[in-house]
Amino acid sequence: MKKHNFSAGPCILPSEVLQEAANSVLNFDNLDLSLIEISHRSKNVVAVMDEAVALVKELLGVPEGYSVIFVQGGASLQFVMTPFNLMKAEGGKAAYLNTGTWSSKALKEAKRLGNAIEVASSKDKNFNYIPKGFEIPSDVDYFHTTSNNTIFGTQIKDFPKAEGLNVCDMSSDIFSRQINVADFDMIYAGAQKNMGPAGATVVIVKDEILGKTGRDIPAYLDYQIHIDKESMFNTPPVFSVYVSMLTLRWLKGIGGVAEMEKINQAKADLLYNEIDRNSKFYGTAEKEDRSNMNACFLAHEGVDTALFDEMWKAAGISGINGHRSVGGYRASMYNALPLESVQALVDVMQEFEKK
Amino acid sequence: MKKHNFSAGPCILPSEVLQEAANSVLNFDNLDLSLIEISHRSKNVVAVMDEAVALVKELLGVPEGYSVIFVQGGASLQFVMTPFNLMKAEGGKAAYLNTGTWSSKALKEAKRLGNAIEVASSKDKNFNYIPKGFEIPSDVDYFHTTSNNTIFGTQIKDFPKAEGLNVCDMSSDIFSRQINVADFDMIYAGAQKNMGPAGATVVIVKDEILGKTGRDIPAYLDYQIHIDKESMFNTPPVFSVYVSMLTLRWLKGIGGVAEMEKINQAKADLLYNEIDRNSKFYGTAEKEDRSNMNACFLAHEGVDTALFDEMWKAAGISGINGHRSVGGYRASMYNALPLESVQALVDVMQEFEKK
Repeated sequence: MKKHNFSAGPCILPSEVLQEAANSVLNFDNLDLSLIEISHRSKNVVAVMDEAVALVKELLGVPEGYSVIFVQGGASLQFVMTPFNLMKAEGGKAAYLNTGTWSSKALKEAKRLGNAIEVASSKDKNFNYIPKGFEIPSDVDYFHTTSNNTIFGTQIKDFPKAEGLNVCDMSSDIFSRQINVADFDMIYAGAQKNMGPAGATVVIVKDEILGKTGRDIPAYLDYQIHIDKESMFNTPPVFSVYVSMLTLRWLKGIGGVAEMEKINQAKADLLYNEIDRNSKFYGTAEKEDRSNMNACFLAHEGVDTALFDEMWKAAGISGINGHRSVGGYRASMYNALPLESVQALVDVMQEFEKK
Repeated sequence: MKKHNFSAGPCILPSEVLQEAANSVLNFDNLDLSLIEISHRSKNVVAVMDEAVALVKELLGVPEGYSVIFVQGGASLQFVMTPFNLMKAEGGKAAYLNTGTWSSKALKEAKRLGNAIEVASSKDKNFNYIPKGFEIPSDVDYFHTTSNNTIFGTQIKDFPKAEGLNVCDMSSDIFSRQINVADFDMIYAGAQKNMGPAGATVVIVKDEILGKTGRDIPAYLDYQIHIDKESMFNTPPVFSVYVSMLTLRWLKGIGGVAEMEKINQAKADLLYNEIDRNSKFYGTAEKEDRSNMNACFLAHEGVDTALFDEMWKAAGISGINGHRSVGGYRASMYNALPLESVQALVDVMQEFEKK
């Protein structure tokens, strides 16, 4: 049975991408060798890396003067690399908008290296909204935001802008909607939502902002080294980059980010309309801050969720258990999730309401 | 045509492992979902991680009191993590044996954090031997070696032992020969030689040595955090860990490391005997320090290597071009390379000699 995969990440990837990835594990580019048993410096693997970088630039409209690299370690290593590369060694200062678990962790890492402050937080309401109307000190080296919060189902719609550098962790919604890269000095994202398998992280960074902190940066943590070595400072996570490249090809094929955004909006509208309409459920995030990627909802008190759980499982739905920090349900609707899967979930919700 | 894959890394993996990996990219554990599109916290992926860790412990005979973790970033990030975790914040001191490119890079990273010294180096002869008879200061926090040097084709046969902690980068020969883990306080290895695809790094560390430096360690760089979170501090490189697990299952199936060591010795003997016998070629590494993983050899002056290159390519051999630092040829004979592939190379060398 074809599953409706609402997993929060690692998450659904296009089936044609999975098919091609499986083929390449057996025989890549008709070399009679597997993708995963050849040198990363072979022309075939270098071509994969080049195409992955080119597709990131094309699909996001990355302007001149920015570099795109792939590294390892996920967003968690970016929490470390960001202050190492952008926060001044002497009197360094950074500002973080705290919208959930991941931004809290990012802030914690920055505090190790300098004066990192929280400009605003939505912790008072279990991160169910995006703070607004706060001030960002004009003297910070950079201001850090998290565009989408998978656990709490919120998403920044209008990005606040600092006078210093603007850095954004877009791990869970990159390539899902149009963004103006020029509004940011650095963007990073783990691959395992809208791009590919866990193990690769893409970083988009304005070249002119690097090398200005006066810090002695460990080699692996230094963006400039990865840029200079074209993401081959050491052996890159070849499989993850390859599958990301295939997914970006697929995204280009369906019309790019603008088209994807429309589809994602349709999916989100379908599900949120049902959550709001259905007498058994309610959404947890403030409406204006709702994430188009992760819809969190709870059953009203007294509702028999055991029956609902049976029903969605029987319908081939997987991965909608909520995170322990929120409870209830979380339906993640990443790029590769078809509208039909959302419809399947809505159907079950309606059927359940009638029972 | 079946290729004879002598690639230096990423390198040959067992064909049955590649087949099972490809299957799981399409449908993992009969879940009707791909391995790379489900949560790393699902019981199926947790089972993969648990089995990978258990196989590392079993195959290497890891004693009680050691932890095994998988992280990202390759050996290059271990070069950074090692001093962060083991070199004291105040008056930290470490000793490195410099046997090639990778140990030089490791040393460079340690120097950023404290007093890291080179106890001996074979740079005077382009790293074609393993230094011996040097002294290791008794007051160092740790002593670092590189067990096998892929580029220069040397391998440590008898590990020197320091009074302080003993740390070894075994990236290119782990699981190829029996080692006594108790002789080391920490061992690390990138997956992409004898284990699996690039993107995962295994670390075997004695628990009692951690938490003693007085350093504030960034979370991702802190071994204790990865141990406490059972390699799921953040999303692990699932595919790389999975394929490593499959390869370790395969290794166990053929009789484990002791059996593998015999096979590797037979392969190395076959090739080195031919290199020494053949009038057209000579080996570059000192005989007593020759690597059983990477055999480096050059053609004598005046030999028509263009013809040899044609011949081995025609025989289905790939990946034997030498590294630019040494030139000539490098035949890498990792675990998954069958004896028949070495025989195929020897046959070509003999045929070439006759022409």
